[in-house]
Amino acid sequence: MNYLGIDIGGTNIVIGIVSAENEIIYSNSFKTNTFLTAKDCANTIFKDLKENTKHTIAGIGIGAPSVNSFTQNIENPPNLIWGDIIPLTEIFESTFNLKTTLINDASAAAIGEWKFGGAKGLENFALITLGTGVGIGLVLNGKIYNGANGLGGEFGHICIDRNNGRECNCGGHGCLESYIGKEGILKTAKQKIEFSSGSSKLHDFIPSEIKSKDIFKFARKEDPVAVDIVDSISRDLGYAISMLANSLDLKQIFLFGGLAKEGNFIKKRTLKAMKPYLMPNIKENISLQISELNEQNPAILGAAYLAKNGDS
Amino acid sequence: MNYLGIDIGGTNIVIGIVSAENEIIYSNSFKTNTFLTAKDCANTIFKDLKENTKHTIAGIGIGAPSVNSFTQNIENPPNLIWGDIIPLTEIFESTFNLKTTLINDASAAAIGEWKFGGAKGLENFALITLGTGVGIGLVLNGKIYNGANGLGGEFGHICIDRNNGRECNCGGHGCLESYIGKEGILKTAKQKIEFSSGSSKLHDFIPSEIKSKDIFKFARKEDPVAVDIVDSISRDLGYAISMLANSLDLKQIFLFGGLAKEGNFIKKRTLKAMKPYLMPNIKENISLQISELNEQNPAILGAAYLAKNGDS
Repeated sequence: MNYLGIDIGGTNIVIGIVSAENEIIYSNSFKTNTFLTAKDCANTIFKDLKENTKHTIAGIGIGAPSVNSFTQNIENPPNLIWGDIIPLTEIFESTFNLKTTLINDASAAAIGEWKFGGAKGLENFALITLGTGVGIGLVLNGKIYNGANGLGGEFGHICIDRNNGRECNCGGHGCLESYIGKEGILKTAKQKIEFSSGSSKLHDFIPSEIKSKDIFKFARKEDPVAVDIVDSISRDLGYAISMLANSLDLKQIFLFGGLAKEGNFIKKRTLKAMKPYLMPNIKENISLQISELNEQNPAILGAAYLAKNGDS
Repeated sequence: MNYLGIDIGGTNIVIGIVSAENEIIYSNSFKTNTFLTAKDCANTIFKDLKENTKHTIAGIGIGAPSVNSFTQNIENPPNLIWGDIIPLTEIFESTFNLKTTLINDASAAAIGEWKFGGAKGLENFALITLGTGVGIGLVLNGKIYNGANGLGGEFGHICIDRNNGRECNCGGHGCLESYIGKEGILKTAKQKIEFSSGSSKLHDFIPSEIKSKDIFKFARKEDPVAVDIVDSISRDLGYAISMLANSLDLKQIFLFGGLAKEGNFIKKRTLKAMKPYLMPNIKENISLQISELNEQNPAILGAAYLAKNGDS
């Protein structure tokens, strides 16, 4: 049987029908902001499948931000305009008349990595998603980890600066996400460009038009300000991962998302920044890897897998 | 059937025969430094049981520091003089001719709390041990968590000061343990007493003779320097727990050991220090508790339980 995997993001919604052989045999995508309600979204996807494919599906798995896996609602999402409490599972089940399962997007990606990527067969690992926000998917004791409150872990909101922490969208200060989430990187860039006196290609940009990609492009060419920004991102990410790896005695950590597309360039610097903080026994065995599915969509594969098999 | 639980610490070794009704029906203790080798220790315990009790046992569970639960060895223990790699399970099995299981002492305590204390029935929680060192026992996804390297988590060695961190026995800098472990507290106390000009009962002590208990005694009487030391401990512990609780979306955290004996006095301050760093959804539901077995020996109960039932 085929299952439908859906990856709901703040910008795009991507859907894919996944076959019994775990191949995506149909896919499509939509702009998130074209839907005023979750019901609109479910109706459009229903219509899309009806009109554009003959493949039938036996169930639906959805990865989305701000999911509470216990209530099967999206709760207080900062990047969706569909309300505060969105009963997404209920909406899709009533639209499709098919069993639907909702999970944190980072957890869906971790399932994808676990079943089809670099984490095959692992009992314990973390996948860190680096995009607009910073998220985490955890497999612990051989099962996907949903957390005590169904949130699955809020790695983007551990505080990495106790004293002078930046304000974060969550209301806290010093959260990792406020430094290495999309907005955070651009804030750091703006500050570093403004206060650098030396020459840098980044001075030629209108500050509001700089993108993370540009920063990495110039850092690879050894532009000093761009290198300084990338080093700052790596230091913060490496420090945060060290806390996770020490607390949980982890060996394998995967990076996924926009920043992870910078490959070895970001990985090597992050690993170097991490190591001084790791316990000797953990440092010896640590492996930081770029997701093997970084160019694909592990959240769709993971969500469809979850719909088919449950969470183990 | 009865099982023998053993709690090996840097100062004392406590043994207990636990009945089928989970009651300790025989117990004894030994000074750790009277044994030059692990074999001496096993022989003495064997003789002790033979001479002093008629209860038979069906298996042995041991909680100890620096355990690798995968190899069943103690590895590079800073507080034991029995060698670098100590095949403790093998030694006890050959001495007693009984199946023996070795586990991290904090994990043994977590099993005790889970089966017989305040954590009964929980799927996910952390127990933090506050003694000479700072350790962690984790139950995640309904099973005791042994970690990817068999170390079970090194919470005492997460870095809480990236910039000016204190040197730690592990070789790192800024580790939590170097601030709120036994030595760390006394180091903080010494510094604060030395640099305080106001009046404090702590000035009457010979610095090397101050004990953690004294500091708390005077803090309860509002001695300003003692209060300052306790606040510093609470801030560091609270901050560290916030990182754990956010990363793992935890609800229940238990404190165990010497510092936990200060009860509400330490709990309230730690909770207050934690809250500003917690994500809103996690903050709402967080519960910090003193171990219900703090006056007993959960590690013996937990180790015996493990010997009898395995780790789930």
